[in-house]
Amino acid sequence: MPALGIDLGGTKLSAAVICDQRLVTDVKQRPTPSGPDKIVEAILDLLAEFKQEHVLVGVGIATAGIVKVDTGEVIGSTGNLPGWEGTPIRKIIERKTMLPVHVENDANASAYGEFTASDLKGKYCLVVVTLGTGIGVGIIIDGKLFRGSHWAAGECGHIKISMENRRLCTCGLFDCWEAYGSGRGLLTTGKELIAGVKPEQSKLAELGDSLTNQAIIEAVENGDLLAQKAFTMWHEHICAGLINLAHTLDPDCFVLTGGMEQFVDYPLLRELVSDRCLPRIAEKMEIRGSVLGKNGGMVGAAELVLDRIAADA
Amino acid sequence: MPALGIDLGGTKLSAAVICDQRLVTDVKQRPTPSGPDKIVEAILDLLAEFKQEHVLVGVGIATAGIVKVDTGEVIGSTGNLPGWEGTPIRKIIERKTMLPVHVENDANASAYGEFTASDLKGKYCLVVVTLGTGIGVGIIIDGKLFRGSHWAAGECGHIKISMENRRLCTCGLFDCWEAYGSGRGLLTTGKELIAGVKPEQSKLAELGDSLTNQAIIEAVENGDLLAQKAFTMWHEHICAGLINLAHTLDPDCFVLTGGMEQFVDYPLLRELVSDRCLPRIAEKMEIRGSVLGKNGGMVGAAELVLDRIAADA
Repeated sequence: MPALGIDLGGTKLSAAVICDQRLVTDVKQRPTPSGPDKIVEAILDLLAEFKQEHVLVGVGIATAGIVKVDTGEVIGSTGNLPGWEGTPIRKIIERKTMLPVHVENDANASAYGEFTASDLKGKYCLVVVTLGTGIGVGIIIDGKLFRGSHWAAGECGHIKISMENRRLCTCGLFDCWEAYGSGRGLLTTGKELIAGVKPEQSKLAELGDSLTNQAIIEAVENGDLLAQKAFTMWHEHICAGLINLAHTLDPDCFVLTGGMEQFVDYPLLRELVSDRCLPRIAEKMEIRGSVLGKNGGMVGAAELVLDRIAADA
Repeated sequence: MPALGIDLGGTKLSAAVICDQRLVTDVKQRPTPSGPDKIVEAILDLLAEFKQEHVLVGVGIATAGIVKVDTGEVIGSTGNLPGWEGTPIRKIIERKTMLPVHVENDANASAYGEFTASDLKGKYCLVVVTLGTGIGVGIIIDGKLFRGSHWAAGECGHIKISMENRRLCTCGLFDCWEAYGSGRGLLTTGKELIAGVKPEQSKLAELGDSLTNQAIIEAVENGDLLAQKAFTMWHEHICAGLINLAHTLDPDCFVLTGGMEQFVDYPLLRELVSDRCLPRIAEKMEIRGSVLGKNGGMVGAAELVLDRIAADA
């Protein structure tokens, strides 16, 4: 049974038809329009396009923000989607299409995608960490997404990894994990390190305010010591959040995904985590990369609506 | 149906008969003997004493250390119970008594006790934090203890709340939550603060190496500024771990228990947590004290064996 999987991020809206935990069409993509009405319109347009060639049984939507899953309403939004909070997206799309719709937080959808599409399906506890501009976490326990008491479990981007109150997060709190371990975090670390450094000491310093993560990664490969320092610190920062989750949840496996995942040095990260974790927990815990990459949210959201259709049948 | 609840800690072995989530006898207590054989002997002695006056249907044992609950074996021990690791305690006691036995980590048992004995029974997610010499955590999700993939969930005493690598924990890792937020943590903070302070500046400084938490608490009440600083820092340290758990699990409620709980200033702690937590999570999350106090482990362990008896019936 094919369902449409939609991933709504702050910059891009993506959709593809999903069947048996994989994409059976190309991904159609457009820039995320501004404001809830235009987002809904864009989702309906994409749906209409796919319906011309496919019989769809449902629609799964992965969206940034906190989602009240039983009603499919966005109850907490991110700064990336202004005005999106309060939108009863499930009700709107169901009314317009007469199809079952499931709406899920994007990190959760991504986690469910990785769970269903990989060999981890039999595992008891799985934690999927999306390393992008920020950090999102989805937790699977005993085959189901764990969403907490108020739909906000996995807001682990905002666990506090330091008591120094040194780095402000976009949420307004200090020293959140995502202020250090995300793409934005790596860039901040890079900028802190080049401050006061002369261009002749490090090529990275020449870039000043126009420093990018891409430049840091390239400089690491070219042996720039400052870039390597930033890169190692970034891994220590990723590690800081992972070990907190490890001691809380004792999972079988961490899966890393998101736009920054491609840059992770797994042997380095595993060594750091293993050094900073109780052996009883670290020795049986796996850390690996995603199988679905940027398609995780679409696959997971589609699988979730298909699960609901199967449960209702 | 009455069951015996036993709580095995590093210094004391306690037992009482439990019926309907409460004690129906006085607590019998003795010092924890040294070595597994003598501990088993002491447990059997206590059992024999209670059996003279009560018909018991099962035995629940709460113990320090990590417990493989399906077999009732202690697979990870604390320094407080040397030689205890590897003891198949359930099998031993079942053979000797012919009664069903359930063995559980003490923080987990305590959490289950609080859950069953309070008005929190209908709640989806509950986190019980035992503030004693160390810190233990028990997590209840959807009516059941969450034990992780390798029986070690809730080892949150070892989540890392700082990146400074400043304070060594008894586990060998740096900056673990319990190195700051436990009784031992408060005492360390107090000792750090009085270092180099003259007795005429603070009465606390007179005590030097013989400083105790009791002395700190008394000095707080007497308006000693140094003691008040230590006390506030201790609350900030407790808060640091709570907000990590809040952003991960989004629970309905934190329940605090353990020997140090009596000293917690709840209005102060709630204010700190609410300042450092995403509003979406903080505003609906309760923080309260335990209903069972030091009896939580016994009640929870007994309830767990009664649950198993009911499930097997």
